[in-house]
Amino acid sequence: MIKRIGRHTIEFTEMPRVIGAAAVVGKKESEGPLSQWFDKTFIDTTMGGETWEKAEAMFQKEAVTVAVEKAGVKCENIDYIFAGDLLNQCISSSYGLRDFGIPFLGQYGACSTMAQTIACASVFVESGAGDICTAVTSSHFCSAERQFRFPLQYGGQRTPTAQWTVTGSGSMVIAAFENGALKNPELIDNDSNIKDQIAVKHICTGKIIDMGITDANNMGAAMAGAAADTIYRFFTDTNTSPDCYDMIVTGDLGKVGTDILYELLEKENINIKDKHKDCGLMIFDLDTQDVHAGGSGCGCSASVLCSYLYKNMLARKLNNILFVATGALMSPTIVQQGESIPGIAHLVNFVNTK
Amino acid sequence: MIKRIGRHTIEFTEMPRVIGAAAVVGKKESEGPLSQWFDKTFIDTTMGGETWEKAEAMFQKEAVTVAVEKAGVKCENIDYIFAGDLLNQCISSSYGLRDFGIPFLGQYGACSTMAQTIACASVFVESGAGDICTAVTSSHFCSAERQFRFPLQYGGQRTPTAQWTVTGSGSMVIAAFENGALKNPELIDNDSNIKDQIAVKHICTGKIIDMGITDANNMGAAMAGAAADTIYRFFTDTNTSPDCYDMIVTGDLGKVGTDILYELLEKENINIKDKHKDCGLMIFDLDTQDVHAGGSGCGCSASVLCSYLYKNMLARKLNNILFVATGALMSPTIVQQGESIPGIAHLVNFVNTK
Repeated sequence: MIKRIGRHTIEFTEMPRVIGAAAVVGKKESEGPLSQWFDKTFIDTTMGGETWEKAEAMFQKEAVTVAVEKAGVKCENIDYIFAGDLLNQCISSSYGLRDFGIPFLGQYGACSTMAQTIACASVFVESGAGDICTAVTSSHFCSAERQFRFPLQYGGQRTPTAQWTVTGSGSMVIAAFENGALKNPELIDNDSNIKDQIAVKHICTGKIIDMGITDANNMGAAMAGAAADTIYRFFTDTNTSPDCYDMIVTGDLGKVGTDILYELLEKENINIKDKHKDCGLMIFDLDTQDVHAGGSGCGCSASVLCSYLYKNMLARKLNNILFVATGALMSPTIVQQGESIPGIAHLVNFVNTK
Repeated sequence: MIKRIGRHTIEFTEMPRVIGAAAVVGKKESEGPLSQWFDKTFIDTTMGGETWEKAEAMFQKEAVTVAVEKAGVKCENIDYIFAGDLLNQCISSSYGLRDFGIPFLGQYGACSTMAQTIACASVFVESGAGDICTAVTSSHFCSAERQFRFPLQYGGQRTPTAQWTVTGSGSMVIAAFENGALKNPELIDNDSNIKDQIAVKHICTGKIIDMGITDANNMGAAMAGAAADTIYRFFTDTNTSPDCYDMIVTGDLGKVGTDILYELLEKENINIKDKHKDCGLMIFDLDTQDVHAGGSGCGCSASVLCSYLYKNMLARKLNNILFVATGALMSPTIVQQGESIPGIAHLVNFVNTK
């Protein structure tokens, strides 16, 4: 059942479960601190394809394939796939997923899309609209640079506040539960190992928050206000505090955005420093990997969630986390027209039901 | 309650209701056959703004403002807004809606987005995730031409299969009902006139269907297969036929796509000709308005739905319609890379509850 808590938070009483997840990444990510946690790494980030855009679509296809295999589900038993990415017209999703034959609902929340796909999949599953849904997002350094900044061949210099778009994709398969058991065990090949699983307990949807930032190389600052707003509303709605959670993970605020987030929340007397991590700061080593302010992109939060975070939850090292994916809702066209960059942040609260 | 019918169709037993709708369009649309049905028409299609992109955002803002006013709802009582458009990174939605302060879930289904936003809003409303949700999409001839084909200044010649992107936006406000009455009448300023209303009875989500079309000026052909697939699946799931409906309206197949749709459905022994209309053929006069194969764009199906179709349903001239918005999930980049154009079509079944 879907229960509303406070003004904007949804609580799932049966709690949809993650029955499979996968993260696939590129070369640079495979050399970073989370190297051991990914399901697959590809040294050739063109994936043997002709273009970076087609490669990104293949990353998304690969993540879904592995997540679905792990879940033990046949594609024809998946009711909906919620997917999105950063490329114009979300082509990584439509081209990467066109062969699966699953009803498709494209989502766009910029780099916040992974939380949005999971939130929508969870509402569909808990409400009975679907038994099993899949969520997936991706990004690719080379396709993102070409589209949002400069083609790589140009050799442009990056500013200190710039972030490095993660090449990778993460996918989760989410299934309906009832009274603590799979609602439709016949849809899963082997349900023996999924009695107790990671569950989606709460979601809190972001508002569009504009901090007045006009620098497309300072995304962290543009998104920090949205992250602070969503986290603040969630704590208010649920009457909880940072102490109640093992970890509060933002998507890709990077170094600059993280500092601003702390500052904004401190004004509301909320201190998340001891519990906070940022996927953009986890996936790369800022001292040695030359990524400036950290990692970014849909694929950043998605691949960290579906690898390190998911596996540490399965191992019961993390039991109650807030995943707050952050997005900058801009296009190069509108920024060139002098507009500021609005941000958004969607929150998903995962709990371990073991 | 959400009930599943067949493999992919959802039936809403309480049926979310459209408590307000609005369509706002530009000059060319105001000169077409549906002229009298729109809520607002703007002769200056820059909306007094500096750029076409900013103008399109204003169209979306205007449509939501009028729909919300008609519904008699305060923005702070709207739980979610589902929105999308055709521009890179869906900026018409994020910039057009940033001032409303409503939790925002960006949707991307190309020109099929209006049906998708209504479908998702209906699932959220029927499941209890929200009491009142808003759905909105837009398109703009000038911003679309610049982005997908050529800047207008170039003066490129259009092929006979090309369609004319509609400048306009449509928005619907959708509210939860229970036992035939508004679930939360206290959220509406004046609920006296909304006891009986247009309801969403079924939705059927599209799959990505690729017909192998590679010509970005032949969108109708690229989308026809997806429309046929969704309509066929819906009739199978519900065990109904075209006779059961007053009208079957596709989004923007235009002249070329419509003929292909008929042909594809005839192979399945389904004849929709007597019941079928296409928003792209309704909004313009093909003989006098020089739009080649018809209108297109997110704003095409949205503005026809929220004006002519909605008002004819309110007047009980249409009581049971299938709205099948169609989209081509491509970007110029990937088409230039030699890829074909996959299509998608989402279906919403509206009924008059009077």
